[in-house]
Amino acid sequence: MATNNSGKGIMIQLYGLRLSNYYSLIKALLIEKGLEFEEVKAPPTQDEENLIRTPMGKMPSIGVDGRYMSESLAIAAYLDRLQPQPALLPSDPFEAGKVVELICHIKLDVELVARRCLPEAFFGQTVSDETKETTKADLTKGMKAVQRLMVCDPYAAGAELTLADFYTFFSFGLASGIVKAIYNEDLLDGHGNIQALMAKLAEHPSIAQVEADKAEG
Amino acid sequence: MATNNSGKGIMIQLYGLRLSNYYSLIKALLIEKGLEFEEVKAPPTQDEENLIRTPMGKMPSIGVDGRYMSESLAIAAYLDRLQPQPALLPSDPFEAGKVVELICHIKLDVELVARRCLPEAFFGQTVSDETKETTKADLTKGMKAVQRLMVCDPYAAGAELTLADFYTFFSFGLASGIVKAIYNEDLLDGHGNIQALMAKLAEHPSIAQVEADKAEG
Repeated sequence: MATNNSGKGIMIQLYGLRLSNYYSLIKALLIEKGLEFEEVKAPPTQDEENLIRTPMGKMPSIGVDGRYMSESLAIAAYLDRLQPQPALLPSDPFEAGKVVELICHIKLDVELVARRCLPEAFFGQTVSDETKETTKADLTKGMKAVQRLMVCDPYAAGAELTLADFYTFFSFGLASGIVKAIYNEDLLDGHGNIQALMAKLAEHPSIAQVEADKAEG
Repeated sequence: MATNNSGKGIMIQLYGLRLSNYYSLIKALLIEKGLEFEEVKAPPTQDEENLIRTPMGKMPSIGVDGRYMSESLAIAAYLDRLQPQPALLPSDPFEAGKVVELICHIKLDVELVARRCLPEAFFGQTVSDETKETTKADLTKGMKAVQRLMVCDPYAAGAELTLADFYTFFSFGLASGIVKAIYNEDLLDGHGNIQALMAKLAEHPSIAQVEADKAEG
């Protein structure tokens, strides 16, 4: 049933919750690629049933013919090989590497940094003043690094929509929300090119659909 | 001069220091792929000259015809597209995704966790007892997650050598060194399958050459 080059006839289960930004990212990619999928509500527990799908218990994971995969970058790599069209990585090897580089920096140097304050921002817990201070300094450094790589002409990595745009939308979306909640500041202040790209991506059909579904709950 | 499908005629500069495990990983990949490269000593400074190559100042970065790229996963993606042989990702899309998944977990849930204690382990600084405690708990959780995904029959992701083996060798190498220095324990204790793989990989020619060069300084 599974064919390796088009994704035809493959039904993919997407596990997680719509509030997760990485769940949303993978859902947008599934829509973008025109792949068949069904959403399965699965909270991020440490239950064995969940750990079989995603060994750290995180969202999202996918299921394909009884096999599972976690980590957004891994799932994105799979989906892009399963259904190469529309292409989300440039055909030029160096340019493809540059897209992955931008994704790594958005994720490691901005989003994962902001997430240190996630427990206080959205879950009613507290993080220390020291964490807030070091997080702020690290975010400033991370944003500078990302800004060096951001092309935004008009898309994140250049003229074409790539995987980096999906990370831009969903990672900066979460990181901006945390920064607003903790510091009452705009993470993208002074980054007009990224703000303009975020507005453009919000209207991109696959992303707009994910956001509309999320609002529905 | 640059051709997109073989890497013939392309000279790659590898910037960084041999003591860096990600520098070593990329060097091993360059050797494995039979690509032409030259090593350029470049410490991990915040100097503008270095930040142009690698926007967080980290090692390694590469230069190709005056363009630069940072982040090991991005460079690995580039090298694998530039010179597809020997293949380091399975041709099956799902299996290729599983290799990336394993790499993500090794990197995010073990190596980056252990690195929190790097300043004390190798650079004469101190980290708090709280950091040491949370790091230890997180490492135990991360190792459990990685062990779920590790095939080790005989290679990390299955019968064939893949990119995940290079991450196994160089990431567990660093993480084990940190754990030994901080806790005087063996990170791989109870993970005989990974220990056996590490021993096998130490004899793999490209990896053995990198390690021999490093010992030379």
